[in-house]
Amino acid sequence: MQHTFIPVPLPQQTYQIAIAPGGLTQLGLWLQDRSIQSVKLGKKVLIVSNPQIWKYYGEIVQESLAEAGFQVDHFLLPAGERYKTLRSIQKIYDYALALKLERSSTLVALGGGVIGDMTGFAAATWLRGINFVQVPTSLLAMVDAAIGGKTGVNHPQGKNLIGAFYQPRLVLIDPDTLQTLAGREFRAGMAEVIKYGVIWDLELFELLERCDRTDQYRFMPPEILTDIITRSAQAKADVVTQDEKEAGLRAILNYGHTIGHAIESLTGYRVFNHGEAVALGMVAAADIAVQLDWWSAEAVQRQHQLIQKTGLPTALPTDFAIDAVANVLLTDKKVKDGKVRFILPTQLGQVKITDQVPPSVIVKALAGM
Amino acid sequence: MQHTFIPVPLPQQTYQIAIAPGGLTQLGLWLQDRSIQSVKLGKKVLIVSNPQIWKYYGEIVQESLAEAGFQVDHFLLPAGERYKTLRSIQKIYDYALALKLERSSTLVALGGGVIGDMTGFAAATWLRGINFVQVPTSLLAMVDAAIGGKTGVNHPQGKNLIGAFYQPRLVLIDPDTLQTLAGREFRAGMAEVIKYGVIWDLELFELLERCDRTDQYRFMPPEILTDIITRSAQAKADVVTQDEKEAGLRAILNYGHTIGHAIESLTGYRVFNHGEAVALGMVAAADIAVQLDWWSAEAVQRQHQLIQKTGLPTALPTDFAIDAVANVLLTDKKVKDGKVRFILPTQLGQVKITDQVPPSVIVKALAGM
Repeated sequence: MQHTFIPVPLPQQTYQIAIAPGGLTQLGLWLQDRSIQSVKLGKKVLIVSNPQIWKYYGEIVQESLAEAGFQVDHFLLPAGERYKTLRSIQKIYDYALALKLERSSTLVALGGGVIGDMTGFAAATWLRGINFVQVPTSLLAMVDAAIGGKTGVNHPQGKNLIGAFYQPRLVLIDPDTLQTLAGREFRAGMAEVIKYGVIWDLELFELLERCDRTDQYRFMPPEILTDIITRSAQAKADVVTQDEKEAGLRAILNYGHTIGHAIESLTGYRVFNHGEAVALGMVAAADIAVQLDWWSAEAVQRQHQLIQKTGLPTALPTDFAIDAVANVLLTDKKVKDGKVRFILPTQLGQVKITDQVPPSVIVKALAGM
Repeated sequence: MQHTFIPVPLPQQTYQIAIAPGGLTQLGLWLQDRSIQSVKLGKKVLIVSNPQIWKYYGEIVQESLAEAGFQVDHFLLPAGERYKTLRSIQKIYDYALALKLERSSTLVALGGGVIGDMTGFAAATWLRGINFVQVPTSLLAMVDAAIGGKTGVNHPQGKNLIGAFYQPRLVLIDPDTLQTLAGREFRAGMAEVIKYGVIWDLELFELLERCDRTDQYRFMPPEILTDIITRSAQAKADVVTQDEKEAGLRAILNYGHTIGHAIESLTGYRVFNHGEAVALGMVAAADIAVQLDWWSAEAVQRQHQLIQKTGLPTALPTDFAIDAVANVLLTDKKVKDGKVRFILPTQLGQVKITDQVPPSVIVKALAGM
């Protein structure tokens, strides 16, 4: 069993990202191991999950924690982005109160990005902050949502408008849990993996190019997939370490997201999932970069092929209202003083940030899709 | 006009506490002055206040900000602890959304502790954290609530159970605003001032002893009152700087609060306000300290006299259910692994933390009041 630990050093504390096939059984031990997790945790642990994930992995995680001496309870929330609300957070609060959780108690998020975001926000805001551990079970959560301390819920009028930056004590990634992930969700996670290749890690990009298939878990050799997850987690950790609160560099993680978010929003979050929207956003950003003479047509082609091989969309629906995109872009929460920020590649593994993209260039990019 | 700036250096940022009689007019300038507030703020500022405070100080604060070039809006919440709820936070969110506040925008809390706590929590959690400025107008908020980064709201079943640690960019204390504060609220703030004297600052204690009266704003010379506020703010800043997240030292600020909270809770927050409950808690803690031979009867007497001179209560209602206190103590959120922590004086200006107070000693202290 190959275990990799990626340290994430931040001003307040350093925490580890463990990438460990079969590692769910180690959670309790690692939380008690002062060389891995440096804070002495209280006895009480509350696992937050959803019914599907709990069915697969609840018992193994609960046993691991109980064997290490923790007093373990669990609380299940229905699966799905539409439950990522303050109402769900209030339910976690009520349960935390019933269990008399203390400052030293721990919330463990066992699930995908929705569970991780909500559990993290509840941990950040209950008693002004209790311990928090991420056990992501979706590829998207493993390589993106679980790393970097972003937590929160949706406002009825916008995604992730309510939240906090709050760091976990440990992120435990067990790639074996991906075997129960739906294919479409796996591909959504791969969109973010491809993103890291383009913005940060040329070797990761080339590793993905060498894979015969990147569209399904079962077609990828476990050791290659673990390597891909490790490189992606390392990329995310590198960036957030240098910019914890999204003041500067961290913006590069939004490659493909500026237009991606607009597409998700305009299609009511029903047509594309997040990863698919990001894939479309990367296609659009690449076209913008070529129009501005920042990126080569050859590199764009390589990105395009990789996205297609992964089974992610590269074309917009024929009835898509392109004109509406500009409007949506201006209401994005990353807009600063009214200017829309784009992340554009300059070569594979490198990007630049700009707020100087003419609207006509954006429309042309979308029209070409 | 005497202006004192107390720097509060924390790992993420240093901010200033300005103690400035008549300083409300300076708010806009100081937020733009890089030597006082080091972050470049966006144009949009939302002042959160309540109707009473807004009537007195809204215009002057709004003008000060507008003259410095900010685009200013305000949002009023009803006054009172019972509105310190997630529901009120959601109303701030809705207004923030309507104004399209951005990451660089600023929430200004203009009011007492309730407004400060709620505005801070909204600032901490909107877009995962926007800029926040405290303009406390009650004595309690000036010397306690506005300093240290505690923000939050009440849960239906417990005070301040929901919240976050979140630091302001600036705390502006204008002692002149105390002229509109109700006498009972002034005395409640004085309870915390006396607390700083006992736990941290003997000179402050002696300064209070030398005052002819400490029970009303109008009987205190402005320069003495400003000095008292400055020393109190400095004490709070000293402690929170050394222990931002309440891991250790910060616990000493809970002198008088262990039993104070229990008394507040048992009387349904209707008989005593927070400061009055803290005064009672200090009387009880002093008695405990004497029973344990930690503190002298003479020092206890001096504290007692100061509390009485300030017009704060020193005796429990005759029908008070003393036996219920122990029960309530165990549900306090500061309980750690089931042990109740007390802060007890060893001499004037110094305290120690202990979780070894026998229940019989607590009951005896309360029975004697």
